[in-house]
Amino acid sequence: MSAIKEKDKKYNLHSWSAQNKVDPIVVTKAEGLYFWDENGKKYADMSSQLVNSNLGHGNKAIIDAIVEQAQKIPFMGPAFAMDCRADAAEAVVEATGFKGGKVFFTNAGAEANENAIKIARQYTGKLKIFSQYRCYHGSSAGAGMLTGEPRHFFNEPGGPGFVKYDGPYAYRAPKACKFENEDDVADFYLELLENQILYEGPEQIAAIWLESVVGSNGVLIAPVKWYQGVRALCDKYDILMVADEVMAGWYRTGKCFAFMNFGYEPDMITFAKGCTCGYVPLGGVVMQEKIAKFFDETSMGCGLTYSAHPMGCAAAAATIAEYKNEDIENKMKVTSKVLADILDGYVESHASVGEVRHIGLFSAIELVKDKETREPLVPFGKDPEGIMPKILGMLKADGFWTYSHENMIVVCPPLTITEEELREQMAIMDKVLDSVDQMI
Amino acid sequence: MSAIKEKDKKYNLHSWSAQNKVDPIVVTKAEGLYFWDENGKKYADMSSQLVNSNLGHGNKAIIDAIVEQAQKIPFMGPAFAMDCRADAAEAVVEATGFKGGKVFFTNAGAEANENAIKIARQYTGKLKIFSQYRCYHGSSAGAGMLTGEPRHFFNEPGGPGFVKYDGPYAYRAPKACKFENEDDVADFYLELLENQILYEGPEQIAAIWLESVVGSNGVLIAPVKWYQGVRALCDKYDILMVADEVMAGWYRTGKCFAFMNFGYEPDMITFAKGCTCGYVPLGGVVMQEKIAKFFDETSMGCGLTYSAHPMGCAAAAATIAEYKNEDIENKMKVTSKVLADILDGYVESHASVGEVRHIGLFSAIELVKDKETREPLVPFGKDPEGIMPKILGMLKADGFWTYSHENMIVVCPPLTITEEELREQMAIMDKVLDSVDQMI
Ligand SMILES: Cc1ncc(COP(=O)(O)O)c(C=O)c1O
Ligand SMILES: Cc1ncc(COP(=O)(O)O)c(C=O)c1O
Repeated sequence: MSAIKEKDKKYNLHSWSAQNKVDPIVVTKAEGLYFWDENGKKYADMSSQLVNSNLGHGNKAIIDAIVEQAQKIPFMGPAFAMDCRADAAEAVVEATGFKGGKVFFTNAGAEANENAIKIARQYTGKLKIFSQYRCYHGSSAGAGMLTGEPRHFFNEPGGPGFVKYDGPYAYRAPKACKFENEDDVADFYLELLENQILYEGPEQIAAIWLESVVGSNGVLIAPVKWYQGVRALCDKYDILMVADEVMAGWYRTGKCFAFMNFGYEPDMITFAKGCTCGYVPLGGVVMQEKIAKFFDETSMGCGLTYSAHPMGCAAAAATIAEYKNEDIENKMKVTSKVLADILDGYVESHASVGEVRHIGLFSAIELVKDKETREPLVPFGKDPEGIMPKILGMLKADGFWTYSHENMIVVCPPLTITEEELREQMAIMDKVLDSVDQMI
Repeated sequence: MSAIKEKDKKYNLHSWSAQNKVDPIVVTKAEGLYFWDENGKKYADMSSQLVNSNLGHGNKAIIDAIVEQAQKIPFMGPAFAMDCRADAAEAVVEATGFKGGKVFFTNAGAEANENAIKIARQYTGKLKIFSQYRCYHGSSAGAGMLTGEPRHFFNEPGGPGFVKYDGPYAYRAPKACKFENEDDVADFYLELLENQILYEGPEQIAAIWLESVVGSNGVLIAPVKWYQGVRALCDKYDILMVADEVMAGWYRTGKCFAFMNFGYEPDMITFAKGCTCGYVPLGGVVMQEKIAKFFDETSMGCGLTYSAHPMGCAAAAATIAEYKNEDIENKMKVTSKVLADILDGYVESHASVGEVRHIGLFSAIELVKDKETREPLVPFGKDPEGIMPKILGMLKADGFWTYSHENMIVVCPPLTITEEELREQMAIMDKVLDSVDQMI
């Protein structure tokens, strides 16, 4: 074992793992789409780390901004005004298009949701918060209570007022459902949701949370009518609509924020990851003017030592400028199409591919044992034989780095990936899927 | 209004404030003890920001490490091993002296406590967590449920299992208490605590939390016998003892961690702030070997995108080295003594100073209307006439920057402050306290 790995394993605990099973790659270099381990082996980062390195590794403009801020003033407490703090706030709020909106900055995604919960409750004076099964919102107590997948078990028993609803997932909808089209899917889930709102009491519901595209749990893209329908229910019952854009935001879907694909506006968004590409931690909550104005005279019950950290703010301002300078929104139109076509092809060519889902460069491949029954390749919440790690291992052996969730493989390369790079990597995926086809 | 301030107020929400009442100083330069506003006015940072800039502003060694890491690899996900990550983990764990211990890194202090709660519950299989009134542990849902002062109201109603106990605060102990010495104080509060443990059921209690020195709520330093007594109760009833060292850690009290002043070892510590001086966000949980080993084969239910962020790790490794290179522990012996003598003098010379508390360069001045009755200068949880802001304003006018909490003024300068600088600033405090004496 190399000295770095040994020291790492001696002192460090890694996320979501039994430590004896952790065998970390020691990374010594990273550039663009690629990173290298200590033996010089090269990997393509086809998950953009945890879907955050949207501009790839080693982006010079962001690094320069970080260096400049470090050499100027790396830290001042959140009570002070600073150029970088004002610039980042302006850039973030303008990116949302929320007229008169404001931002409260946090360190990352879980904390963004934590604070949005408090803001929603303080603003509405109501307790209950709806959130969706299969959504991930972070692992601290509040964000964990929002989360609708097994990682929230570690936050249980949570606090009162957190209510889970079922969101659109046509591929695994109840068997009785007969859908002719996307609108039917939306109508079904909206009917369930409205019933639940009535059962729970609309006058007690502060907010309805959703991931604007469900990310970690397999890029579940709901029909346009769903998003607009939730918006309409929120308006009808005077409930805030909160879109978690932590993973889907910052051009991952092809638009700056995912909600922009679906013709609605939430009352608040939470964000993190792509706003700095993760080069320095930063997250936050952007709220519409009506909520921001509420805190003109009412003291906001939110605070943290590193709110609007200058280093994060400098990185964010540079990152947001870089998305525009590099014309990411236009550039990724081509690669998004290429990825979509390749993935769609897999459904035809691979027996193990049940469904593919993609929007922009945000995509997942859902593996099944049987296309007819749709039985997942591994059962929900478990993988006793380690099948998914085996598949990731085959990809990794060929230099394709990504991660999986349940029976799904994430494909979310940096938005800067070229068509050639994309085709080259997806050829590896194609080959590995051939092996998976053999396994079932 | 300057352009920066205007932009700040247009887009940014500041912590714990009604935004119309926020009039932020625009900071354009910071160096050592000092920072400057956009008009060139100079302030001495006598609170080390939020008691985190322990080495003052502009420390070159930390900045160089940040710059180097930014130019090398600013981000890799927490699954990977990296030199900076291994080095920081080693430095942090070795600083605690926990033989065989390990660290789980987070972004900051609240998240450190969030994860420590989950670890304590997972390791013990028990639900209840004891924490202390007047302690602050952060403002996310879990850390907020630990917190025992009004800022946690925004987290209510919280989850089940959080139990508050009363910790040592001799100056405001119940009137019936007759204490001859520090041991009597400890005995009284230990008796209360043991009763409460029995009432709540020891076999249901996962952990007892404390701030190893209560920080935000006025530098409450408990007797040695208290800390050792809590340790003994934890051993007796098989309960974990968790010390929050977020504010008290990293030499603030004169020793690397505050617990080291009191001859006991907790089972876990949470830390943040001084580990990077806040230059880049970083926090974490260090646990003793028995807990670390538990996660060898059991999957740890904790994770976040930015766990062990390379930029934070690089900053931490450099900061910890810098505490040693600058021989902070020895250097601050002189300034700690000077500060102690000056503060102790105030109790004699100022009618408004009820009590002063200090350990290392961690201190607070508690203001009263009447030394006999000990009536606080402002009532608990309110300050309708804005008396404390007025006092801070007088200090600020003379270039002494700090913050207050309830009826207490924080004095926590960078640990690098010279004796001359300290005397110069405390002369300003002395003068302002003369005015406060006139007010009562
Ligand atoms: C949609 C979503 N929300 C919140 C989070 C939590 O963010 P963080 O890990 O930065 O706390 C994540 C992380 O993956 C996420 O995907
Ligand atoms: C003792 C203590 N714990 C936890 C925290 C929370 O840390 P953060 O603001 O970095 O989340 C603080 C912040 O002041 C603190 O003083």
